[in-house]
Amino acid sequence: MSAITVAEFNTLLQKVPLATHMNISAVHIRKGDVRILMPYGPHLIRPGDTICGPAMMTLADVAVWANIMSFIGPQEMMVTTNLNMNFLRMPGLSDIIAEARTLKMGRRLAVAAVEIIAANTDEMVAHATVTFALPQ
Amino acid sequence: MSAITVAEFNTLLQKVPLATHMNISAVHIRKGDVRILMPYGPHLIRPGDTICGPAMMTLADVAVWANIMSFIGPQEMMVTTNLNMNFLRMPGLSDIIAEARTLKMGRRLAVAAVEIIAANTDEMVAHATVTFALPQ
Amino acid sequence: MSAITVAEFNTLLQKVPLATHMNISAVHIRKGDVRILMPYGPHLIRPGDTICGPAMMTLADVAVWANIMSFIGPQEMMVTTNLNMNFLRMPGLSDIIAEARTLKMGRRLAVAAVEIIAANTDEMVAHATVTFALPQ
Amino acid sequence: MSAITVAEFNTLLQKVPLATHMNISAVHIRKGDVRILMPYGPHLIRPGDTICGPAMMTLADVAVWANIMSFIGPQEMMVTTNLNMNFLRMPGLSDIIAEARTLKMGRRLAVAAVEIIAANTDEMVAHATVTFALPQ
Repeated sequence: MSAITVAEFNTLLQKVPLATHMNISAVHIRKGDVRILMPYGPHLIRPGDTICGPAMMTLADVAVWANIMSFIGPQEMMVTTNLNMNFLRMPGLSDIIAEARTLKMGRRLAVAAVEIIAANTDEMVAHATVTFALPQ
Repeated sequence: MSAITVAEFNTLLQKVPLATHMNISAVHIRKGDVRILMPYGPHLIRPGDTICGPAMMTLADVAVWANIMSFIGPQEMMVTTNLNMNFLRMPGLSDIIAEARTLKMGRRLAVAAVEIIAANTDEMVAHATVTFALPQ
Repeated sequence: MSAITVAEFNTLLQKVPLATHMNISAVHIRKGDVRILMPYGPHLIRPGDTICGPAMMTLADVAVWANIMSFIGPQEMMVTTNLNMNFLRMPGLSDIIAEARTLKMGRRLAVAAVEIIAANTDEMVAHATVTFALPQ
Repeated sequence: MSAITVAEFNTLLQKVPLATHMNISAVHIRKGDVRILMPYGPHLIRPGDTICGPAMMTLADVAVWANIMSFIGPQEMMVTTNLNMNFLRMPGLSDIIAEARTLKMGRRLAVAAVEIIAANTDEMVAHATVTFALPQ
């Protein structure tokens, strides 16, 4: 069972104004398995009628934050130590979904992989791996 | 001599609403050597009285875009293929500066390294390497 | 169906003496789905009774090379443009297996994710994403 | 002053047979500033008359190990947690040099950037960032 609910996570996310600006919210959180939504809006675009890369990086970071809290509960003070993202194809003007999967939940570091998916085609448009330092 | 001016770059950047929301702008562009500013504001914070990681990733991405255009001129359709960022220390509530340096300007790919610096301490707070696919 | 057989791939791999030194070989190649083996030996160790990280990076790189050739056939001149590896836990003195999965087969770039697994525990010990530039 | 000498480091490196196989050795170690050499040999090649990528990743990893020990002294049990390498151009059949620079020496994590240079042209052929978990 997840150590944080969708409602608890979405409340915590309001402490990150940039995520609020992007209307990012959790849809589904189970232990080690989360789904986060960033609905399409004109504030997310870039030239080429597509979603800008930084919006997808933000979404990946949020997804891993949620993923880790599904193990350890609400925790504001975790910080990202590394994020690596490969951009695979342009998503078009679509809602974007992130699905994060835990690779490691250690005592000091947690690592997760994230698939970024364009909702209108269900294609993976980017892939990230993200490391967080856990509070000691 | 740079193939794009600061004014031209800042005009082009208005096509990325997320960068506009963060008040990101170029301060200085010479060929292969750019300096980009993200002034502090409450829209950039996260818990811990610090700047959120995704804002710094956005800044790094913009800095490399500018860096490449300093060689090839205004070009909307370049896309990021990979971004890797290491977060080194928390910047506090400070203006943030990105300085990008070209590692490779190839025919198909360009790679740059970016130092993300907290203006109030002049310390490097994050480091990124970024690859763009060039228009063919 | 794969565009290269296990035997063809293992012959091609003899052109990389470092892979030969590590006794790396393909076990299984289907289109977009490969399994590569690095059998345990004392030439692979590092302090801590474990396998050294560079051996696992070599294995990941070879696995993606095989993965791409499962689509396009034997091709010596592809080159890696980016490799990012997260080391999750120490594998102990075990055979090591790499399983690669294609994320993108583009015209110019191919991207794959690799799980590095300790054969004695079946645990994932490292995870990589790798980009190759395809021959034009 | 460095907390480890070149001779001490090269002795320690003999505990990593893969580095010995590649004839990797430190040339110069000052605090936070190291230079590591991998002399050319036919055991390092790959198709295209060039040095294989995994040899350069091994060299980068060794360079960061030396770099951290220049601060904290001989220490076998540090482990790499993340390595990201961008390959910029093919080095040809040349000696290869790695120069590592510390980005962060924290209590738990150390991060360094590495330039990989072809000795025959003095060009940077690859760039890495590497994170180690420090012994606690």
